Amino acid sequence: MKRIITIAAALLVAGSAFAQQALVPGTGIVSPEINPDNSVTFRYYNPKAITVQVSGDFFPTERVTFEMDGRTRTIDNPGKADLVENNGLWTYTTPPLEGELYSYTLYVDGQKMMDPSNIYQNRDIATWTNIFTLSAEKGDKGWYYQVNDTPHGNVTKVWYDSPTLGKQRRMTVYTPAGYEKNTRTKYPVLYLLHGSGGDEDAWSDLGRAVQILDNLIAEGKAEPMILVMPNGVYFNQAAPGVAVNMFQPTISNSRSQSTVEVENSFPDIIKYIETNYRVRKDKNSRAVAGLSMGGRQSAALSRKYPDMFGYVGMFSGVVPPAVDAEGNDKALDAVFAAGPKLYWIGCGKTDGVMKNSLLLKEYCEDKGYPVTFYESEGGHIWRNWREYLTVFAQKIF
Amino acid sequence: MKRIITIAAALLVAGSAFAQQALVPGTGIVSPEINPDNSVTFRYYNPKAITVQVSGDFFPTERVTFEMDGRTRTIDNPGKADLVENNGLWTYTTPPLEGELYSYTLYVDGQKMMDPSNIYQNRDIATWTNIFTLSAEKGDKGWYYQVNDTPHGNVTKVWYDSPTLGKQRRMTVYTPAGYEKNTRTKYPVLYLLHGSGGDEDAWSDLGRAVQILDNLIAEGKAEPMILVMPNGVYFNQAAPGVAVNMFQPTISNSRSQSTVEVENSFPDIIKYIETNYRVRKDKNSRAVAGLSMGGRQSAALSRKYPDMFGYVGMFSGVVPPAVDAEGNDKALDAVFAAGPKLYWIGCGKTDGVMKNSLLLKEYCEDKGYPVTFYESEGGHIWRNWREYLTVFAQKIF
Repeated sequence: MKRIITIAAALLVAGSAFAQQALVPGTGIVSPEINPDNSVTFRYYNPKAITVQVSGDFFPTERVTFEMDGRTRTIDNPGKADLVENNGLWTYTTPPLEGELYSYTLYVDGQKMMDPSNIYQNRDIATWTNIFTLSAEKGDKGWYYQVNDTPHGNVTKVWYDSPTLGKQRRMTVYTPAGYEKNTRTKYPVLYLLHGSGGDEDAWSDLGRAVQILDNLIAEGKAEPMILVMPNGVYFNQAAPGVAVNMFQPTISNSRSQSTVEVENSFPDIIKYIETNYRVRKDKNSRAVAGLSMGGRQSAALSRKYPDMFGYVGMFSGVVPPAVDAEGNDKALDAVFAAGPKLYWIGCGKTDGVMKNSLLLKEYCEDKGYPVTFYESEGGHIWRNWREYLTVFAQKIF
Repeated sequence: MKRIITIAAALLVAGSAFAQQALVPGTGIVSPEINPDNSVTFRYYNPKAITVQVSGDFFPTERVTFEMDGRTRTIDNPGKADLVENNGLWTYTTPPLEGELYSYTLYVDGQKMMDPSNIYQNRDIATWTNIFTLSAEKGDKGWYYQVNDTPHGNVTKVWYDSPTLGKQRRMTVYTPAGYEKNTRTKYPVLYLLHGSGGDEDAWSDLGRAVQILDNLIAEGKAEPMILVMPNGVYFNQAAPGVAVNMFQPTISNSRSQSTVEVENSFPDIIKYIETNYRVRKDKNSRAVAGLSMGGRQSAALSRKYPDMFGYVGMFSGVVPPAVDAEGNDKALDAVFAAGPKLYWIGCGKTDGVMKNSLLLKEYCEDKGYPVTFYESEGGHIWRNWREYLTVFAQKIF
């Protein structure tokens, strides 16, 4: 009984407090709790609720088909489970889970809610979810996505001038641990591009690029490198919150329909980085990779500038071959004529992009071009993009 | 009817989507909407809800008293208003509001929820709320807190070595627009400290320090300066999310009980900044200010190192005079013997810190020390701390 009273007192405060900073103790409930067997327990206190569910990407998905913008679309919704109530405290425990970064939300009487006991949340375009990382053993995915006791790189939100686009724009730059001290070292650079609806915060936040690089570098599995994560929506200056007007991101205001503007303006980014950071400036010290729209942009950038990048990564996004009457894709032929050290395609088995990814792979193989194809489970999801970055970053420089 | 159908289709997707990044369109509802008369309309779609309320700091507060940790505490809860339902769409419009950054949440059938149509959220210790900025006219508070079409400074999350505390620690560093280009300019530095429960993200996020400085500098009202926002909890390395383990912040794991460790380790921070940034290194090019616990730390730092800072700001937090048998506070006398250019105290009329703030002011006035006392409405709240920073930053360097 004492526990419930404590909880109720905590809720009185937590439900209200955005006035008195020093008086915000949270709910007094531990949720989620990662148990010794790597099962996860969710807890939520609400004596008045009739149903409480947890929806998370650790459950099998349910495919939903719907119409939007005149197109039939499918989406794989995360599954749900019911929490069970006892004295107002609702609980549910998952089966043991593998190491991963997981997303979830609660549904209380059918309404989506954040877990009030978990401050960790992440935004994917217009959708907020709670998150947690779980590492079952050192070296599993969750271990690479969590913060470990390693040296950490610095992360800067940089405003740079893009004369081509006629505006100041913002990007995220990661410099590896030691960059400030090793003043005679020059570093290679990975340009890492987000997908439709995303922004320059996407890879460093939900993409865990900072943790992945910190951990890979600390383990000696990736070269110390600079990561540059620009905003790939050419008509936006910056992510919501740091752009003029508090715009609400949607597909239409946060995607580029074509890659042309990104291709034309990309040298502005490279010029800024190569002027303001201690970097190596040869082709084999530059890599470009991206997810979905950013994968298409990476493919397009390598075709537009075959001598710019020694490493090209396309994560769930490619430019499929466009062959002429003789069966040649001349832009793609030029990419391989320039001899890339790595041309890497990653795609999930159930991803709609698989068809074009295979077309690109087959074209390359028919021509005898060295292409690396990486197939994973699942579809067009962040879980895959984090995995692809972890694999790709170990293969470059 | 068409509108409701569109909304329902949007909800089908938005309520589920953390799988398919490209398919997250938001709710299709505009909330909040700032109207031409600066009233604000909140909208929320839910045909099944019985009551929907909005709770926000634009309403008069309701004072609640409760017991915690054996102490009687009071908290000023934000007021609430009922939304009215029509065809499942709930709405409420405020009276016209003044320029400010506002926080709010929804209560649906009594349960606190984020507004699903507003991606803008901010965390204060363990409490998430939605936020929006409103500017009624150029130069009002909301204008200084929003992103305007000005040059923007860069923001870096820096890991530095603290030999005194025996660990790597993280801080936020703002460099003003032009820092990269003006390679022969050296800048003054404001060290800006957060309160209990906060971390190195607090001032740059909810405190709007980045926007305040961008806007003040663009208007010619503040000197271009570097802002250094360290983590003031000496036993933590970093904010939740970038620290090892996903700890849930509470008062006990996110505050320092004493200022001693901050005093002893502060030279590590200054050394890092003065080694790695182009800064002026004289006393009158250094300022220190902080809110609540950070105000106490600022006062303590000025007493420990009277020759270190030319400007001292205490926002809702002071070290009250501790007089000896002769009626002298020797540490405070030493501060003024060293001739600070500014010794600034800010406090809200209903803030519990007012008593000690007045004791400090009176001691200084009795001694003939130049002290600036700034009294504002309200209590121990971010609204005041943003205002104090805006005023203080115009008076230094």
